[in-house]
Amino acid sequence: MSARDVKLDFERHDRLGFDEAILCAGKSPEQLATILDQAAEKGAPLLLTRLDGAQLKALAAGHTDRIDYEPLSRTGFFGAVAEPKSAPTVAVVTAGTSDVPVGREATRTLAYYGVASLAINDVGVAGLWRLMERIDEIGALPVAIVAAGLDAALPSVVGGLSPGAVIALPTSTGYGVARGGETALNAALVSCAPGVVVVNIDNGYGAACAALRILRASSRAAPL
Amino acid sequence: MSARDVKLDFERHDRLGFDEAILCAGKSPEQLATILDQAAEKGAPLLLTRLDGAQLKALAAGHTDRIDYEPLSRTGFFGAVAEPKSAPTVAVVTAGTSDVPVGREATRTLAYYGVASLAINDVGVAGLWRLMERIDEIGALPVAIVAAGLDAALPSVVGGLSPGAVIALPTSTGYGVARGGETALNAALVSCAPGVVVVNIDNGYGAACAALRILRASSRAAPL
Amino acid sequence: MSARDVKLDFERHDRLGFDEAILCAGKSPEQLATILDQAAEKGAPLLLTRLDGAQLKALAAGHTDRIDYEPLSRTGFFGAVAEPKSAPTVAVVTAGTSDVPVGREATRTLAYYGVASLAINDVGVAGLWRLMERIDEIGALPVAIVAAGLDAALPSVVGGLSPGAVIALPTSTGYGVARGGETALNAALVSCAPGVVVVNIDNGYGAACAALRILRASSRAAPL
Amino acid sequence: MSARDVKLDFERHDRLGFDEAILCAGKSPEQLATILDQAAEKGAPLLLTRLDGAQLKALAAGHTDRIDYEPLSRTGFFGAVAEPKSAPTVAVVTAGTSDVPVGREATRTLAYYGVASLAINDVGVAGLWRLMERIDEIGALPVAIVAAGLDAALPSVVGGLSPGAVIALPTSTGYGVARGGETALNAALVSCAPGVVVVNIDNGYGAACAALRILRASSRAAPL
Amino acid sequence: MSARDVKLDFERHDRLGFDEAILCAGKSPEQLATILDQAAEKGAPLLLTRLDGAQLKALAAGHTDRIDYEPLSRTGFFGAVAEPKSAPTVAVVTAGTSDVPVGREATRTLAYYGVASLAINDVGVAGLWRLMERIDEIGALPVAIVAAGLDAALPSVVGGLSPGAVIALPTSTGYGVARGGETALNAALVSCAPGVVVVNIDNGYGAACAALRILRASSRAAPL
Amino acid sequence: MSARDVKLDFERHDRLGFDEAILCAGKSPEQLATILDQAAEKGAPLLLTRLDGAQLKALAAGHTDRIDYEPLSRTGFFGAVAEPKSAPTVAVVTAGTSDVPVGREATRTLAYYGVASLAINDVGVAGLWRLMERIDEIGALPVAIVAAGLDAALPSVVGGLSPGAVIALPTSTGYGVARGGETALNAALVSCAPGVVVVNIDNGYGAACAALRILRASSRAAPL
Amino acid sequence: MSARDVKLDFERHDRLGFDEAILCAGKSPEQLATILDQAAEKGAPLLLTRLDGAQLKALAAGHTDRIDYEPLSRTGFFGAVAEPKSAPTVAVVTAGTSDVPVGREATRTLAYYGVASLAINDVGVAGLWRLMERIDEIGALPVAIVAAGLDAALPSVVGGLSPGAVIALPTSTGYGVARGGETALNAALVSCAPGVVVVNIDNGYGAACAALRILRASSRAAPL
Amino acid sequence: MSARDVKLDFERHDRLGFDEAILCAGKSPEQLATILDQAAEKGAPLLLTRLDGAQLKALAAGHTDRIDYEPLSRTGFFGAVAEPKSAPTVAVVTAGTSDVPVGREATRTLAYYGVASLAINDVGVAGLWRLMERIDEIGALPVAIVAAGLDAALPSVVGGLSPGAVIALPTSTGYGVARGGETALNAALVSCAPGVVVVNIDNGYGAACAALRILRASSRAAPL
Repeated sequence: MSARDVKLDFERHDRLGFDEAILCAGKSPEQLATILDQAAEKGAPLLLTRLDGAQLKALAAGHTDRIDYEPLSRTGFFGAVAEPKSAPTVAVVTAGTSDVPVGREATRTLAYYGVASLAINDVGVAGLWRLMERIDEIGALPVAIVAAGLDAALPSVVGGLSPGAVIALPTSTGYGVARGGETALNAALVSCAPGVVVVNIDNGYGAACAALRILRASSRAAPL
Repeated sequence: MSARDVKLDFERHDRLGFDEAILCAGKSPEQLATILDQAAEKGAPLLLTRLDGAQLKALAAGHTDRIDYEPLSRTGFFGAVAEPKSAPTVAVVTAGTSDVPVGREATRTLAYYGVASLAINDVGVAGLWRLMERIDEIGALPVAIVAAGLDAALPSVVGGLSPGAVIALPTSTGYGVARGGETALNAALVSCAPGVVVVNIDNGYGAACAALRILRASSRAAPL
Repeated sequence: MSARDVKLDFERHDRLGFDEAILCAGKSPEQLATILDQAAEKGAPLLLTRLDGAQLKALAAGHTDRIDYEPLSRTGFFGAVAEPKSAPTVAVVTAGTSDVPVGREATRTLAYYGVASLAINDVGVAGLWRLMERIDEIGALPVAIVAAGLDAALPSVVGGLSPGAVIALPTSTGYGVARGGETALNAALVSCAPGVVVVNIDNGYGAACAALRILRASSRAAPL
Repeated sequence: MSARDVKLDFERHDRLGFDEAILCAGKSPEQLATILDQAAEKGAPLLLTRLDGAQLKALAAGHTDRIDYEPLSRTGFFGAVAEPKSAPTVAVVTAGTSDVPVGREATRTLAYYGVASLAINDVGVAGLWRLMERIDEIGALPVAIVAAGLDAALPSVVGGLSPGAVIALPTSTGYGVARGGETALNAALVSCAPGVVVVNIDNGYGAACAALRILRASSRAAPL
Repeated sequence: MSARDVKLDFERHDRLGFDEAILCAGKSPEQLATILDQAAEKGAPLLLTRLDGAQLKALAAGHTDRIDYEPLSRTGFFGAVAEPKSAPTVAVVTAGTSDVPVGREATRTLAYYGVASLAINDVGVAGLWRLMERIDEIGALPVAIVAAGLDAALPSVVGGLSPGAVIALPTSTGYGVARGGETALNAALVSCAPGVVVVNIDNGYGAACAALRILRASSRAAPL
Repeated sequence: MSARDVKLDFERHDRLGFDEAILCAGKSPEQLATILDQAAEKGAPLLLTRLDGAQLKALAAGHTDRIDYEPLSRTGFFGAVAEPKSAPTVAVVTAGTSDVPVGREATRTLAYYGVASLAINDVGVAGLWRLMERIDEIGALPVAIVAAGLDAALPSVVGGLSPGAVIALPTSTGYGVARGGETALNAALVSCAPGVVVVNIDNGYGAACAALRILRASSRAAPL
Repeated sequence: MSARDVKLDFERHDRLGFDEAILCAGKSPEQLATILDQAAEKGAPLLLTRLDGAQLKALAAGHTDRIDYEPLSRTGFFGAVAEPKSAPTVAVVTAGTSDVPVGREATRTLAYYGVASLAINDVGVAGLWRLMERIDEIGALPVAIVAAGLDAALPSVVGGLSPGAVIALPTSTGYGVARGGETALNAALVSCAPGVVVVNIDNGYGAACAALRILRASSRAAPL
Repeated sequence: MSARDVKLDFERHDRLGFDEAILCAGKSPEQLATILDQAAEKGAPLLLTRLDGAQLKALAAGHTDRIDYEPLSRTGFFGAVAEPKSAPTVAVVTAGTSDVPVGREATRTLAYYGVASLAINDVGVAGLWRLMERIDEIGALPVAIVAAGLDAALPSVVGGLSPGAVIALPTSTGYGVARGGETALNAALVSCAPGVVVVNIDNGYGAACAALRILRASSRAAPL
């Protein structure tokens, strides 16, 4: 693996407002090092996702020193990130404890871009009262990311109660027919609530990018 | 097709408390006639399911005269059925208008055995208030059959609010990822509510038979 | 089918800003008539989707007279709709001629709520120059709905070039491995462009509702 | 992971008669400790499922001391459980030796709620005489949970011979086309015996909860 | 379609002991006529399968006159067939009335080659007593073809009780999770009875050819 | 795991001519020991399949001493086995080197019952000349088991050239679309050669049992 | 449907050497008319695929007059096509009679571009001698398109015997596990012969375009 | 495993121009040693694919000494290989860093046969400008192998811009709906660009063999 095998999209920021983000899963230490070097040389920040502890340890100190790492979400910020804004604009809602790491990936991606979020955990519909206690907070924000596995009933219920943008984030929680998140994904796609949109299984990063696109849309749209 | 190609299970009633039931879909008029003749000869009643109007018309008058037919559910009672009981013991709940025919198949099967049911239609979770208005009625009955297609969030919500037996009845409502009811089925199987059980897609007959088994169980069980 | 089998969610408008919408496919004339009567009585407008010509003809004149029908998208407006705004805020982009009816369902749903859209058809990536001619127009609007079947490469390319919200709308165009839109759906879900969101196959209605949620979000969000 | 990432549904007992149950698979020691602490603080008992030996060891002594653990089923009782009743009301039937751990999860869940069960193992239909020796015992109880993998022929045969409630519990036993239990699940869903209901693959916990709902139903239902 | 588009395998008889067999489904009248002409010219008999009534009618009288047609199985014998043997050597067992046409295709294919069979219908395991009445007859023959749809429990039960060769013939009977016979097929492939073999869904012709291969094997094998 | 969790089918030999066979994969040392003890007590021999080296080592010496183990096929004979016959009656044909272990499981199962087989390896159709050199030997035996992964073209070619019974044994060889043997299985089920039968993926044991049933059939069948 | 909904890629010829081709299936007469008008105006020829007889009849005479239609392949040439070359450079091989229409679509597409092909039909591997008679002719040409359904063993056998480019063209022939061509497709993708490439199910047009790309490659490549 | 379990196809070179290639994954050291010995004895070179570092180490020095190993692609050349040609004739294009190992397998296979290739990495469509910088180089070569995972939009875009032969090489990059490369594979098969051909997931070896067949075709084809 040499430098000519890597060509990062540093123009992405100007084009889309997103920096390059590196999916670290499956990449060797050499590949990661090549990528970090190329970014460092350009002075470009990077968002690292699915970077597990073992991969982090295998990097040279010169690299790890510059990474702000959060283990639950396995995300790292390489280089300078945006100044955080104080008021949350995105609700990140999870159905159960097992969905928290995926939700955290979304929260961290938003934080990388300076967007504060409101985390509301463990409000799955099996105990509906927990959601009802918090639904007004969710509905008051422009965007909600709703992470749920199993039957993913939560995005439908939120979508039926909250008028904002609702991004369903299916997770791989569960066993058997949960099929690694496929059932949650499919249930979200055929949600009985109108206008719920969906991203790939366990893709907290993608859900956050979608929220960012939506928030940006507001600067160009006249209010409805 | 001759009489020796058909051997009905007339001993089923004594063994299980169920009469023979005939799934009419895919059977020719000759096959149906042979079956009805065999039942008539034995003096045994039959429940006919998925009997469409065209099949009914193709039967001889001697047969149709003895069939009590209901078109929405495509069910027919052949021969004498049980005396109806007055108080409903099963709630038959549907998420949307398109699920009503499947729910009606359950209602009719229960009626064949003299069991009254309470039909509660169009209470899908996209408009949760509709369910909330009726949830106490549902929870007051020992068994609820919950028919829903799409993301089948309704059985989960009912299962999280009602302590009785909950039978999820997935329906083939919807298009695309609804996949003819597969998504509803899978979502019901991984319901986040504990102890929800599931039957085959569009199988209103089977859901009703399960309810009957449960109701019978009570005559042999000491209260918990 | 009687009136008590139908319970429309007329509170939805106040809760979510959406009127009831009726998926007409698979509903009988009696079911549709019951629904229209209930809406008429309430003075509530309805959006009708997947209403084919034969169903329309089977309705009574008193009903059809009040329906503004568009055949390509098979949509009908029942009752008064919103005053149209002049400037488009949503781009509705299709990859090929066969995707136009699905795109049109989105356009019509937006129109029902008074939102103008910019239709850009037949710009699939097999002839990339066609998209390049129009990409600046697309990127200038806050939201793009991108309808494509087959390999659904178009949402990825648009998502890589346009900073606004991008809603992939997979269509059932194609045969064989296209699998009725499943391949397009999956390709969109794993789009290499960050932050593309997805709705169910052929669900132009849902894509438009998502766009409406996004546009509304802007009235509550401070610009990013 | 902090306490605010966990919100247990302690109201579930009053609502449904079920305590919170924790699916331990995939949870870190920190997550489990947070959950146990929250339960201990409330004085609420918990049922722990899929708690493997390594997870148990990783807990602090203060936690493990309070857990009544059974390794074959990987279940733990945290806190006081119900007084056992003497007479079994549920038959827990398994097709082969490999299905015993899943059946044991059902048995243990029932025991947590004070319900005794009758375990009948290794009576798969390949050697039908083994089932025939025990079928009268099974038929005498109000509910049978039937655990089987591979072709899951056992629930159909039991359902054809026993009039009580029959809950099919498909297991992931087998290889190749067994597909981790999918074939057993599907076979159970289309069982030729009327009124057999089904739960998720390897979900002994869910099967037991369904049995509990059914037993409770009897206290509210007049005998059929 | 011209004669040079068809090249029948008339050498098959000498090589394998099978004549050419024509799967008529999906072939146009012209294609069928070209095939029959080629066979007639060679003086070679043909077995026609899945020849529906409309196709038969569309053929010229010169062709239909020479076809011995049986409508339930949709099979036709073109030209001279083997002299029938009197004693049956193959049991053709079906689970339900809907499986009879597929079983009949097997019976007819055997008859084409002069092999008599014993048809035993409607002995599905939901009413096990029906099978038990006939199991000794089945076990006395060297080969059993067992046609069943839904959960295909019948081949497993027969395979567990009969020592002869057991060919499972899954059928497309049923709806929902029956998936056009896929569930029956998979259940048969993972049968808990040892040594059950399987053919394609609804392939009565293939099951019969397998039986013929097995019967022939006996002329070359010393008894075990 | 106690003795009452295991009930071996020792009557199987008299009923079907097969001894009990134990699929060892997924069983714990305790479970295996309980089974072996029960067999030893009865004086009944056992065939052990998918017994890997680690499991073997974990058994007590008193058990391992009595096991005749073959590592490539992972099979063990526990107790006395049949006297081997000299002349092979079954050809066990494999497409490639990776298919040999599965083929060997078949060979060993046959050997357990005293049946000699002829192994013909590495004759896949990519180099057709290799098969052509051996086809006459294959065709001279009453039964051929043909093990192949990937596209499983070999059973079709053998089935088109050899008149004996042909049992396709799909293997999990390959990657990607090979899907752990699913493609090989499906290709074998729709083989263009008439009368090829199929067993589960990697099920060398089942293929051998089928061959044994076929060989036995010959002692009860008059030659065709 | 108006002209602005259609934007044909008339620059494709200069870019890729391909004219626009219209997949007619699913397009209305109005859509087809708009497309033909646009092409006529530009003086651009079109290849029409999957144009069935009913669609052709629904076109105006001014359009049909200019279409050279072939019914078996459902292809039409609109406008002037290339002068045919005399010597065939592509073999189009089919396994069975039912595969001929798909093969013919390839033949016709090649003819549209002036490339002659050699059709070799009905040479499936069930009767291997038929292929062996023609294999030298196939091997003498630079490209072979091999159309086969069911188990698609033919492309593997051709790929193992012929050194030229081999394009597998899976067809939807067959029933049950044939799954509309999926099994043939998968078998071709994991062909045991090295370097076989694959196109979508029934996509004779695509196979021919691939052959054209390959033939063109030769004008730019030095011989290997 | 003995020598008679291995029969290499050394005639392949003369027949097809390919040497034997050994897929090492899943083979034991003994199996590999037997194969290398057989090749060494014949003086035949071998291409080794999917040979991981642990397998290499387990071989005897006498074997490893003769293997030219490249770790990223896990390929080894055993024995003498072709003299490299200087000018590249195949472009090997990858969408992202994670696709490079698969692309490298293609490059190495080409090198084994003396064919030089041009590697162009990290040009996925999310940053389209990267591809546009290199598209003329790609289009100038007769064959392009395009490796991409996720939505595999790259082969479609290349196929729409380059007139040469385009071989899509789907990779297993990604998670969730990427499904180990299935989505990339399916997207490539229904590519909207005409004449793109496809090989199995991660099959760099097969893509290179296809390129070799195409290059050879040119020596027998008159230029188009």
